[in-house]
Amino acid sequence: MKLEDFSILVIDENPDRAAIVERGLVESGYTRVSRIGTSYNLVERIQALAPDIIIIDLENPDRDTLEQMFQVSRVIARPIAMFVDQSDSNTIREAVEAGVSAYVVDGLRQDRIRPIVEMAISRFNAFDQLRRERDEAKAKLNDRKLIDRAKGLLMQEKGLSEDEAYNLLRKNAMKQNRKISEIAQSVITAFQLEF
Amino acid sequence: MKLEDFSILVIDENPDRAAIVERGLVESGYTRVSRIGTSYNLVERIQALAPDIIIIDLENPDRDTLEQMFQVSRVIARPIAMFVDQSDSNTIREAVEAGVSAYVVDGLRQDRIRPIVEMAISRFNAFDQLRRERDEAKAKLNDRKLIDRAKGLLMQEKGLSEDEAYNLLRKNAMKQNRKISEIAQSVITAFQLEF
Repeated sequence: MKLEDFSILVIDENPDRAAIVERGLVESGYTRVSRIGTSYNLVERIQALAPDIIIIDLENPDRDTLEQMFQVSRVIARPIAMFVDQSDSNTIREAVEAGVSAYVVDGLRQDRIRPIVEMAISRFNAFDQLRRERDEAKAKLNDRKLIDRAKGLLMQEKGLSEDEAYNLLRKNAMKQNRKISEIAQSVITAFQLEF
Repeated sequence: MKLEDFSILVIDENPDRAAIVERGLVESGYTRVSRIGTSYNLVERIQALAPDIIIIDLENPDRDTLEQMFQVSRVIARPIAMFVDQSDSNTIREAVEAGVSAYVVDGLRQDRIRPIVEMAISRFNAFDQLRRERDEAKAKLNDRKLIDRAKGLLMQEKGLSEDEAYNLLRKNAMKQNRKISEIAQSVITAFQLEF
């Protein structure tokens, strides 16, 4: 993806500061830049705009505004760079935990926009990959547990061998165009029904 | 852990810049601060000092120095904040991939040391937790596969039931004070021996 293909959304209430950010972006080669202010239903507006990267400049935000922005970060899975003029330790930790990819305290300067946006993208990608690897490993483990449990139930309750139990699950998954683990979950649920 | 308990190692060749970092740290409440230059066997020296946090200030590093520092970051599992005066996109990405927790381009200022160190700590902890979750899920999945495979071999080759096969693995693990998956691995290896 070339720089000029990235769409960047700047969230900023202050026109002077927004101009610094926007000049920094254009100088870096980003051309698809739009701006909105903070507002109610911000998450919905961002989802509608579907930007590739989000830059939030907050100056000295109150607690509610910060919380709103962290909520944006939790919901919108995109690289987010956030600029504030000051911050305490707890807020820094909250920003990281909310998934803000670059949280810059008192560092808004036109010529630093480029490295900070690049940092946010790299940081987001590294974190996102690790998260996907974790989720995938957890899902595989969970699938395997479900299938083992369903196999065990079929062997015990229906007198099937292990291979027969597995083949039964597999055949039904193929017929219904679903995952074997989904069929396994149905089998487990069915055996647990109380009458 | 209180701030004054953290030991911080500053790696810096330039006494003036090192003084900025060190004053920023002392002002923030960090008192256990030591400094070394870049040098050969840097990794070994850092491991001997065993700092809680590392700050690397490089001004305008050459390629070899950068590579040496990224190697430090890959080997030493601690929060690392790195300051450089300029950087291209590729180097920013390399820094993130090497696990540098805060990579600050042209942002060295005494009053920014505190938020940047706090950011590095938060970022390191968030990434480390996710990595541990991923590794744990992968290890559990791998253990489960080994145990299933060994059970299958014992059932097939020794005519055991599934429960008997599992109990055999479990009993031997307890007796040898090893993990069930380790016994399973030995069983698999033994059955694969070629004579």
